[in-house]
Amino acid sequence: MKLEEFKDPNDLKNYSKKDLEDLAEDIRQFLIGKLSVTGGHLGPNLGVVELTLALHHLFDSPKDKFIWDVGHQAYVHKILTGRADQFDKLRQYKGLCGFPKRNESEHDVWETGHSSTSLSAAMGMATARDLLGTDDNVVAIIGDGALTGGMALEALNHIGHEQTDLIVILNDNEMSIAPNVGALHNVLGRLRTAGKYHKAKEELEQLIKKIPAFGGKLASTAERVKDSLKYLLVSGIFFEELGFTYLGPVDGHDLDDLAENLKYAKKTKGPVLVHVLTKKGKGYEPAENDAKGTWHGLGPYKIESGEVVKKPGPPSYSGVFAETLKKIAREDKRIVALTAAMPGGTKLDVFAKEFPERMFDVGIAEQHATTMAGGLATQGMKPVFAVYSTFLQRGYDQVVHDICRQNLNVVFAIDRAGLVGADGETHQGVFDIAFLRHLPNMKILMPKDENELQHMIYTATKYDDGPIAVRYPRGNGYGIKMDEELKQLPIGKWETLQEGTDACIITFGTMIPVAEQALAQLTKQGLSVKLVNANSAKPLDEELLHEIAQKDIPVLTLEEAALQGSFGSAVLEFFHDNGYHNVEIKRMGIPDEFIEHGSVSELLAEIGLTAANVADQMMTMLPKKKQRA
Amino acid sequence: MKLEEFKDPNDLKNYSKKDLEDLAEDIRQFLIGKLSVTGGHLGPNLGVVELTLALHHLFDSPKDKFIWDVGHQAYVHKILTGRADQFDKLRQYKGLCGFPKRNESEHDVWETGHSSTSLSAAMGMATARDLLGTDDNVVAIIGDGALTGGMALEALNHIGHEQTDLIVILNDNEMSIAPNVGALHNVLGRLRTAGKYHKAKEELEQLIKKIPAFGGKLASTAERVKDSLKYLLVSGIFFEELGFTYLGPVDGHDLDDLAENLKYAKKTKGPVLVHVLTKKGKGYEPAENDAKGTWHGLGPYKIESGEVVKKPGPPSYSGVFAETLKKIAREDKRIVALTAAMPGGTKLDVFAKEFPERMFDVGIAEQHATTMAGGLATQGMKPVFAVYSTFLQRGYDQVVHDICRQNLNVVFAIDRAGLVGADGETHQGVFDIAFLRHLPNMKILMPKDENELQHMIYTATKYDDGPIAVRYPRGNGYGIKMDEELKQLPIGKWETLQEGTDACIITFGTMIPVAEQALAQLTKQGLSVKLVNANSAKPLDEELLHEIAQKDIPVLTLEEAALQGSFGSAVLEFFHDNGYHNVEIKRMGIPDEFIEHGSVSELLAEIGLTAANVADQMMTMLPKKKQRA
Repeated sequence: MKLEEFKDPNDLKNYSKKDLEDLAEDIRQFLIGKLSVTGGHLGPNLGVVELTLALHHLFDSPKDKFIWDVGHQAYVHKILTGRADQFDKLRQYKGLCGFPKRNESEHDVWETGHSSTSLSAAMGMATARDLLGTDDNVVAIIGDGALTGGMALEALNHIGHEQTDLIVILNDNEMSIAPNVGALHNVLGRLRTAGKYHKAKEELEQLIKKIPAFGGKLASTAERVKDSLKYLLVSGIFFEELGFTYLGPVDGHDLDDLAENLKYAKKTKGPVLVHVLTKKGKGYEPAENDAKGTWHGLGPYKIESGEVVKKPGPPSYSGVFAETLKKIAREDKRIVALTAAMPGGTKLDVFAKEFPERMFDVGIAEQHATTMAGGLATQGMKPVFAVYSTFLQRGYDQVVHDICRQNLNVVFAIDRAGLVGADGETHQGVFDIAFLRHLPNMKILMPKDENELQHMIYTATKYDDGPIAVRYPRGNGYGIKMDEELKQLPIGKWETLQEGTDACIITFGTMIPVAEQALAQLTKQGLSVKLVNANSAKPLDEELLHEIAQKDIPVLTLEEAALQGSFGSAVLEFFHDNGYHNVEIKRMGIPDEFIEHGSVSELLAEIGLTAANVADQMMTMLPKKKQRA
Repeated sequence: MKLEEFKDPNDLKNYSKKDLEDLAEDIRQFLIGKLSVTGGHLGPNLGVVELTLALHHLFDSPKDKFIWDVGHQAYVHKILTGRADQFDKLRQYKGLCGFPKRNESEHDVWETGHSSTSLSAAMGMATARDLLGTDDNVVAIIGDGALTGGMALEALNHIGHEQTDLIVILNDNEMSIAPNVGALHNVLGRLRTAGKYHKAKEELEQLIKKIPAFGGKLASTAERVKDSLKYLLVSGIFFEELGFTYLGPVDGHDLDDLAENLKYAKKTKGPVLVHVLTKKGKGYEPAENDAKGTWHGLGPYKIESGEVVKKPGPPSYSGVFAETLKKIAREDKRIVALTAAMPGGTKLDVFAKEFPERMFDVGIAEQHATTMAGGLATQGMKPVFAVYSTFLQRGYDQVVHDICRQNLNVVFAIDRAGLVGADGETHQGVFDIAFLRHLPNMKILMPKDENELQHMIYTATKYDDGPIAVRYPRGNGYGIKMDEELKQLPIGKWETLQEGTDACIITFGTMIPVAEQALAQLTKQGLSVKLVNANSAKPLDEELLHEIAQKDIPVLTLEEAALQGSFGSAVLEFFHDNGYHNVEIKRMGIPDEFIEHGSVSELLAEIGLTAANVADQMMTMLPKKKQRA
């Protein structure tokens, strides 16, 4: 059967091992071929080909439920559930989502994107099953990186306590996105080498029977010691202690080994953890030998040579951030950088090369990272936590309770702020202004280009009166000239990019070029429009706002952020709080809905954040005679 | 020395064991006496008297740093650091805070209130020390309940990995606020019974040397097995596996045992976990024999009889919520209740009595609770997560990413919304409207009294188009007549409580009585003011707002919530989005600062949320002739 025609994974039920192995090979070639054109998460998916086949071979999806943690490893699952023909539009506008999506297929029972949610979701589903008295199996598939996220540990703890009947597949590929961090990883490492203890185990078990204390009256102790030797020697003890039945380690590329253990897991009552060892990139040499994480998720590449297609371009915002921080750290010993498993994405790997002692990758643990930064700040250090906007959501309480409330000098370098494109709705960085702006003591900056970014990062590290966030977009800067000297910008002092007398546009960051184009159109129509770079969403430039309000001209605010409670609302609040009730204000931004994947320009067009629409909206606010001008 | 005169804990250095024991007794009597008048967290503090004395005896605060997780157990620490004379105003307006507070003393190096933050903070401080090359000790004191919070587990994992030199005191009192949940607790339980394995351990260690595989070539394996037997038998294995040196269990009321282990911890390189067993309420019988958690934190009581002084009053909002949910659950099999370690506070313990199978206490794990609720919802259940407003902050990302984004039918029963009083700034529930309102699909309701609450809870459980939050305040209702039949309220349909033609007040929840009093004053002055109960902050009642806007009268919004991005902003946004630029709007609410402890009425007066001020503010908006009317 051609992959494109694969509709019902239950067809796999009658496949022989040979059939499955052939299919695995077909799927690998399919993935390598398709993704070479579209890009996508190649490494993780090549790693789970056999595991996904084994799951669909042995379980009955969608009655049985598969929950893919993070979810970028669900391509094989998508192929087997009737979506192979959509891979030409993977992660593209209106095309196949790169993560599980409930409206794509009944086989996608839970949507992911952020890490470490699968165990909680699985427990919810399994609990519902038990209350409803049905008999489906619930299987969560989670990587060893995602398992270090606090919420996964909360769930492990609770599942062990309740003894809920569900299966956790620990997909252990030794890598999350960066090499894993944390002691838990070391435990897993030991499991991997368990083989050599088998002989010792047998001998010990024989001898233990001869120990007097274990022979008679202390039988339960003996039983316990025997049990724990088993745990110790195959080293599933960590999970066994939490109340799980531990199975493994299983060779994740051996269909027999997988089948045997999954069958056993299915039969076992209570929670089971199946420890599956897989290799990221399996079957494609460049991806297998990927020390730097390049093949985790990437753009197009050449299949034969394994050469990644690079579009030449200006340095990325992340790159400028990291280079700037390096420069500052040379002079300022207080600088300490933190990342939560994103050293590559945030470019802090570059920083770490020069300052290995002053960079901490805490693993997938945004909560811990935020508060650890707070601890550093109390001692006079200047921690800089580089984190994607969408992932900072997970540290919200820590930002409120630990950082803002104590008014600690923590710098948040918020990467991927605004729309991110292909990763879609789970990853859009559009809420941060709304979730940070209402917090006392917080400051929020955003640069209009990479040159302003470097000065802002410098400014933030020099700011000593509490937390400060600098948000910047995904992708490249404009390639503009960079000032050689870093300088401190006045915080809360906006920049007037163009003077004008008929109306005013207040905007910042990525929307500046959009506003400039709109302005060009409006100027052609004879209008004089003031343009302001509001490079600080909090505090506002009150002096300038007073000035604008007194001109009594219409004001348009424009932002690539969720509209409600965001920057535009701050401007509205200011005008009303200061008695300027008559100023006509229009707020443009991201409407009250989640924005799916696509290129950023397609998404901006969809929601009307285009120069043409900005110009149109502005026209509606102008007096009729101006409109006709 | 009198406790009141105790200024420098270093004076303890020269105390004999007898001196310390006498002091412990003094402190207990002091706490029992003072708290019988003011109320406070008696149980937790009686449990840590010896532990706190031992810490100050052996370490040098503030050079050495004590970080009190949650922080309500820091009273003894406050007594020893010069604050005994302030206990008459404990948790009162402008008085001593019930939690560590940096502006009270240099000995309070980190502020807490929410749980599970101490390890991350400690790691930050210890890392700063290592980078700065100083030599202070960092000690985090965390309860067994707080240890199940995800961020504490993230920190344990990272500390183990980095091998940071710090001390974790696990204060294991078998209870957090409610009996602990989770498999981790079982591990700790086993530790407690470790004594009986000592004999077996000795025998095993002798015999192990005779096992051939361990005798010669497999020496390292033998070493390993021997080590792990040690871990197994004293059962510190869980922490040892994570890279900590485990010491204990230590009798937390035996000064010698404490001293010995703390000294050893001080000397040991890398992270150390000292497992200290304490008894909550130690030394005061009613508190020792506290099965229900009454003595954890409470109001005044009679010392002799142990009788808690109860103010008779109407049922609490929490109580009405729980009773209502019980009533609904009898008819609606889909209802499942969840709490994160707050069965008493949320009154879900009442629900659990009737429906033990349908109530889940997940432990201190708001992230997991939120997403587990989502999993339940996907299967057609109707999960109701009862959670304090301030603690829902910790589930923010899960609310965004799992619940709102998938538009799942989860009910959030947000207790303690608004100012909470004595617990102070870490516990005020003032941000929830601002952090929920910008989320697509979310609905946010708040009742004006307990009768409206019961209908709202019913309405929320019947709502089948996504997440819905019902927020209600701490404390008692008004004792008004409760309707017998539950009814569904139209969502987004506000209630006009009084018609008026000169101005309009839009408010909700606890501010309704304040507005009514203001109205009475304004009416006396001959003004006709419309009063609206905006019982839904999202969606707004657009029809009514259109109507109000067209009247062209001044509008005052009033809320017991953080002003920025909150309900008042939503009203502002509506008017401007709909072209009503000329409406004069004043927003009243909580200003952009953290609000400390005190009675709710004192705090409301401080920030101007009083009837008199509402009336004054309204007057400033009225045309001069009306003002003189």
